[in-house]
Amino acid sequence: MKLDSTLVEEGLKKINWAWNFMPVLRSFEEEYQKDQPLKGERICTCLHLEAKTACLLLTLKKLGAEVSAAGSNPLSTQDDVCAALVSKGIFVYSRRGMSTSEYVENLNKALDIEPTIVIDDGADLIALLHTERQNLLPRIRGAAEETTTGVTRLKAMEASDDLSLGVIAVNDAKSKFLFDNRYGTGQSVVDGILRTTNVLIAGKIVVVAGYGWCGRGVAMRMQSLGAKVIVVEVDPHKAFEALMDGHSVMSMKEAAPLGDIFLTLTGNRDVIRREHFEVMKDGAILGNAGHFDVEINKNHLEEMCESKAVSRKNILTYTLKDGRRLHLLAEGRLVNLAAADGHPIEIMDLSFSTQLLCALHIRKKTLEKGVIPVPEEIDRLVMKRKLKTMGVTLEEMTAAQRGYLRSWKE
Amino acid sequence: MKLDSTLVEEGLKKINWAWNFMPVLRSFEEEYQKDQPLKGERICTCLHLEAKTACLLLTLKKLGAEVSAAGSNPLSTQDDVCAALVSKGIFVYSRRGMSTSEYVENLNKALDIEPTIVIDDGADLIALLHTERQNLLPRIRGAAEETTTGVTRLKAMEASDDLSLGVIAVNDAKSKFLFDNRYGTGQSVVDGILRTTNVLIAGKIVVVAGYGWCGRGVAMRMQSLGAKVIVVEVDPHKAFEALMDGHSVMSMKEAAPLGDIFLTLTGNRDVIRREHFEVMKDGAILGNAGHFDVEINKNHLEEMCESKAVSRKNILTYTLKDGRRLHLLAEGRLVNLAAADGHPIEIMDLSFSTQLLCALHIRKKTLEKGVIPVPEEIDRLVMKRKLKTMGVTLEEMTAAQRGYLRSWKE
Amino acid sequence: MKLDSTLVEEGLKKINWAWNFMPVLRSFEEEYQKDQPLKGERICTCLHLEAKTACLLLTLKKLGAEVSAAGSNPLSTQDDVCAALVSKGIFVYSRRGMSTSEYVENLNKALDIEPTIVIDDGADLIALLHTERQNLLPRIRGAAEETTTGVTRLKAMEASDDLSLGVIAVNDAKSKFLFDNRYGTGQSVVDGILRTTNVLIAGKIVVVAGYGWCGRGVAMRMQSLGAKVIVVEVDPHKAFEALMDGHSVMSMKEAAPLGDIFLTLTGNRDVIRREHFEVMKDGAILGNAGHFDVEINKNHLEEMCESKAVSRKNILTYTLKDGRRLHLLAEGRLVNLAAADGHPIEIMDLSFSTQLLCALHIRKKTLEKGVIPVPEEIDRLVMKRKLKTMGVTLEEMTAAQRGYLRSWKE
Amino acid sequence: MKLDSTLVEEGLKKINWAWNFMPVLRSFEEEYQKDQPLKGERICTCLHLEAKTACLLLTLKKLGAEVSAAGSNPLSTQDDVCAALVSKGIFVYSRRGMSTSEYVENLNKALDIEPTIVIDDGADLIALLHTERQNLLPRIRGAAEETTTGVTRLKAMEASDDLSLGVIAVNDAKSKFLFDNRYGTGQSVVDGILRTTNVLIAGKIVVVAGYGWCGRGVAMRMQSLGAKVIVVEVDPHKAFEALMDGHSVMSMKEAAPLGDIFLTLTGNRDVIRREHFEVMKDGAILGNAGHFDVEINKNHLEEMCESKAVSRKNILTYTLKDGRRLHLLAEGRLVNLAAADGHPIEIMDLSFSTQLLCALHIRKKTLEKGVIPVPEEIDRLVMKRKLKTMGVTLEEMTAAQRGYLRSWKE
Repeated sequence: MKLDSTLVEEGLKKINWAWNFMPVLRSFEEEYQKDQPLKGERICTCLHLEAKTACLLLTLKKLGAEVSAAGSNPLSTQDDVCAALVSKGIFVYSRRGMSTSEYVENLNKALDIEPTIVIDDGADLIALLHTERQNLLPRIRGAAEETTTGVTRLKAMEASDDLSLGVIAVNDAKSKFLFDNRYGTGQSVVDGILRTTNVLIAGKIVVVAGYGWCGRGVAMRMQSLGAKVIVVEVDPHKAFEALMDGHSVMSMKEAAPLGDIFLTLTGNRDVIRREHFEVMKDGAILGNAGHFDVEINKNHLEEMCESKAVSRKNILTYTLKDGRRLHLLAEGRLVNLAAADGHPIEIMDLSFSTQLLCALHIRKKTLEKGVIPVPEEIDRLVMKRKLKTMGVTLEEMTAAQRGYLRSWKE
Repeated sequence: MKLDSTLVEEGLKKINWAWNFMPVLRSFEEEYQKDQPLKGERICTCLHLEAKTACLLLTLKKLGAEVSAAGSNPLSTQDDVCAALVSKGIFVYSRRGMSTSEYVENLNKALDIEPTIVIDDGADLIALLHTERQNLLPRIRGAAEETTTGVTRLKAMEASDDLSLGVIAVNDAKSKFLFDNRYGTGQSVVDGILRTTNVLIAGKIVVVAGYGWCGRGVAMRMQSLGAKVIVVEVDPHKAFEALMDGHSVMSMKEAAPLGDIFLTLTGNRDVIRREHFEVMKDGAILGNAGHFDVEINKNHLEEMCESKAVSRKNILTYTLKDGRRLHLLAEGRLVNLAAADGHPIEIMDLSFSTQLLCALHIRKKTLEKGVIPVPEEIDRLVMKRKLKTMGVTLEEMTAAQRGYLRSWKE
Repeated sequence: MKLDSTLVEEGLKKINWAWNFMPVLRSFEEEYQKDQPLKGERICTCLHLEAKTACLLLTLKKLGAEVSAAGSNPLSTQDDVCAALVSKGIFVYSRRGMSTSEYVENLNKALDIEPTIVIDDGADLIALLHTERQNLLPRIRGAAEETTTGVTRLKAMEASDDLSLGVIAVNDAKSKFLFDNRYGTGQSVVDGILRTTNVLIAGKIVVVAGYGWCGRGVAMRMQSLGAKVIVVEVDPHKAFEALMDGHSVMSMKEAAPLGDIFLTLTGNRDVIRREHFEVMKDGAILGNAGHFDVEINKNHLEEMCESKAVSRKNILTYTLKDGRRLHLLAEGRLVNLAAADGHPIEIMDLSFSTQLLCALHIRKKTLEKGVIPVPEEIDRLVMKRKLKTMGVTLEEMTAAQRGYLRSWKE
Repeated sequence: MKLDSTLVEEGLKKINWAWNFMPVLRSFEEEYQKDQPLKGERICTCLHLEAKTACLLLTLKKLGAEVSAAGSNPLSTQDDVCAALVSKGIFVYSRRGMSTSEYVENLNKALDIEPTIVIDDGADLIALLHTERQNLLPRIRGAAEETTTGVTRLKAMEASDDLSLGVIAVNDAKSKFLFDNRYGTGQSVVDGILRTTNVLIAGKIVVVAGYGWCGRGVAMRMQSLGAKVIVVEVDPHKAFEALMDGHSVMSMKEAAPLGDIFLTLTGNRDVIRREHFEVMKDGAILGNAGHFDVEINKNHLEEMCESKAVSRKNILTYTLKDGRRLHLLAEGRLVNLAAADGHPIEIMDLSFSTQLLCALHIRKKTLEKGVIPVPEEIDRLVMKRKLKTMGVTLEEMTAAQRGYLRSWKE
């Protein structure tokens, strides 16, 4: 990558701005930097290459590691941030808008560092390591996975006995999934929709597919902006929670003709497809906030449309044969990352501090193979550090109270 | 218990009203009644004896069981409902306002039925079976426990190898804890506070101790009535969730001088105690919605006060030596049960339908000893039945979608 | 009225409790008491006779007035409060459940005091003064009206040139309508519904007729308890506000078959009538929170029903010929007053402090005839006093800022 | 202005996108276009020159008028939209980032059209007409003003007898102020903050100065994103409303050291000034959403800072002598317009449809001088048309109901 100094400067600005709002990561960097605990490690990462990720990558480097980075999504890569990273000595392989083949090529290049530790987002890197790059496996002490989608894939690998690495499910840390998936996705999807469309949310009918942590975060924020939310779910308990939270619940078939805005957050494919497009209102807006761009079936849109055109930045409008127009946001890729700046900074401070501590943990002890949880003490440490930076005091149990909880005779 | 026909009539009215709003329990009763599947079982229960519980007890009986009932809390027992139950052939041992010794005596009497199945709420019945009534244990096929507090105690028993029964943790069923503890407690505590005090919630500072499912339900409802909520927590992740939900977080020591209303939902004891009473504002209102009346230390109040008097129904005002007055609701017992009618009916329809199916499950197969989860299929069936009564359609996954979730190669 | 000492004691307890939460009225009583500014005045009042009203009546007396009181609604009168008032020297003419003829008789008796000042709630007293009791008009210096409904009637009287008194529209004071009608009605209607029915609000469809201040207060609270709200409105701007607030809007004809709970707050009659009852769901709950019991047409229910019976305290169930049951709360009277304790205390502290200052104002200067606003300085004083009791600091404009707002050249 | 065809194309895309979401304006254009009712009128406008405004300007032209346009704010002007307007025959005088002298020059150029009708936003055009361009006044049939700030200025002019035109206060139309200032500003300020800063709102303390319609819209949205809101107000009733809505209220002096984000919406100057900057936390974020860039005193910031630098697009960071950094958004100009796309499209559909009908009204009849309200029938027509496009049915009163509201004898 050739360096454009304006790009570098823009990128550094973004990174510095983010760094302001990452007190937890800052505190760990300060604590560990002088001991260079990652000296000698080669860390290969596949992450959304924007300013907050850059902070993690630079901290890994400052703690002694060599770091390579591939972008986990063609539209979430920010070129100025990449330039800044390169200027700081990170090996970066990505560019905004890269094709699928470039994407895979970049994953391979990032792996050429011959990593000892892997940090993945969606498990594409780990999948590649188990197919074409198996020769690299023996050197790897362990890996960490950032997303729900990735953990689901890894568990499928583990179930079919295909997983040869120890992978920490960072996604499942309380410090991550309780906040990132709900408050992070909630706010950032709102950001993506507002800045892309400029439409009024109040009074709209917003269809949210999937009522996991991400879905409920988005539903909550849309509701609080005045929308009426329809939730589409396969799980009865989640469906009833949605009802209790004041939303309507129905099948996508029933919701399709009612919605003004559709958002998918399921981790599955074809959640919105031909049969649904067929009955949507003229002008419906379609966005995805699940990991891959398969939740909204773009092939069906391509087949059904008479013409398509960019209506506004990040909006592709498909005009169907009957004249109805459907507006697809960010090519069906993560709308909060491709059409906004991803999660709020403070949320990623928690996720990436957890990632940092997991890397330090792997450094100390090669992981047994399998999907394993984030060590309880790491999870708790990150959270307590965060509360400390906010000046928040927890209640302490007295000895008598601890005893009471352990006893069963009143 | 001598029957007063006016009481019976009042009780029957309450029970009939509740029955209207319990479509799930109704549907199971209808489905099973003609087979009399509980014929020959003797079921000893310790529950809050009010109208919704009565519906469960009557259904158990209609399905063939003999049923005895003790009240799980002296102030949650409603005498008219008890009278109605007696008139229908349930063996009832309770009265509103009974003393602690009467309470224990009543548990014993209810156990005299020599139960084959036990349904408990707080685990007092099961504790008694493991101390003074051990002789009854061999006959018992299994038990079920309704509350978080009870399950905590049972796990302490199991941990110290003191548990000789199989007990289904009904509390931990999704159909129960996801709804009962959050939406049920949330609404019913609001009800208890409003009808007892008539004070305006908007603009008040409400201190909520404990941000488990119950605590967050109450915090959510108080916030939505316009209060500013302060959460007191020992767990860092729950504390940060409270912050994300818009609440303040601090220690009870810090919160004590700020609060207008204090509510405890921790399952622990002495959550509010002398050191806190000492700094509270004149006129502070104190309520508990945790299982036992030990969360607010009443002994300390007794020691600190110059005088006390009933200010209004269910409000006992302690006047301290410095003239400040602290208002304790419902003698520190569950404010939603002792000063209102407990959980909304539809919520208990889910909990009690789960209890019913667990009893049928125990009937078929004696449980192995230990605390065991509600069978997945029961939990799911209850929820699907509920959605069906509401006319709600779940999304169905296609075969391709199921396959996608199982595969890890994209 | 004969005095039952138990009743008196109960009533005094209620009054004392309310007095705790009325710091504004307390502060004015303290300020004025020693000057006895109402000495020689005879004040005739028609108000909801419960504890908060009692505080106003007693303050009027303590400031020197003779006071008579009729109840403004048969079901809002609390007999124990009346007994307590009598014991303190107020002339009370009301009892819970009085018939319409008794009601009118009581208005007349209260007027027999030959008032110099009148305080009315719904304008029945003033209407009577302009029909059968015209002889009393000359002595009256002025009157004050508490409600939207009353002010509407008075303006109709003024428009047809039938009003011979000066009446202050206390309802229209900012200190009153901004808070009483929205936050007061909102919370107290919730209270009335919860304690009367014990049904779960979350997931219910609640139809709110009228989106004035009262209606939006109720809609807001129901929404925040998890209900989906349908608003029925005649005014397009209010209808669109309801949409912006996340509610649905439709005609009553469309809403009737959808609602689980119906609440009327329009000030009009026959808002729910035969054509609507005909299509409602079995089990629908009907409540009114508008001033008069004419919003839900009870005559139609009587004509349509096969039988009726009390299902629970304050619930009358009409069983229609087709078997559907409709549950009417509190006989169609103000559900927050007849089935709960009316507005929260702190809200009435504002309204009644305004009433007190209006009485003092009338005392100083007989009003010109017509409906007149609350003097700006009274309205402002009440609010500033309230903020002072809460320790809240307002921002002060600088001289430069005041100048800026007056100038038009930038 | 020289035309760049790429700019034109970008601008047209934006305008077409907006047009999709303006069904009310579209319906009026369709209704009136063939009659060319504005033929012969010259309309001079000063508005925020972005896509939605462009739709109004183009409609005015399509109805026959000649139209000139100046930008009402240097940072709200979008150059591509201007290019597109020029390509369609509108006379445009503005560019993003113009200096104050250019701004005034542009106002003058726009006036050179010798208007018969004036549409203003902030009253700068009308002020200029009453100072340097008085010669143009005789030709002008009437004007319309869009904002609260402008109406305040015009009323000051009227009060000092300086207003020689009839000006319709479009801002005060229900169809405008009830929605634009609350839901419009609320959502668009959120948009501006999110896209500019990427910080997490949940858990933050947001200080909102001014609790008028704009301020409460912003406070409501910030609260619903999880912030704790502190309101600063000079008016006691508004302050108490803020308390009832769950916010804290205090003076700016008290709030300054507590806030993470400060937003001004007062219409006044120096709302945040030296004494407040002196005690703010390091990293505080400052934004304005009032009309002029005088609410946050930038002169004080300039005087107090050691250095300043752009931290991120639209963020200017002042580093004070003690090392604290204060981040000013969009140079203290309207953050929702300068750092986002202004109000949601559907909101402006209402405001601009009202503007259109007012222009048609002025066309028919020259206005008497003074500030006059939007004719009731226009206000109502716009709203009813909007509801019609949404398929919403209003309730209709029966004749009996109308009669009831007019009568005062029950």
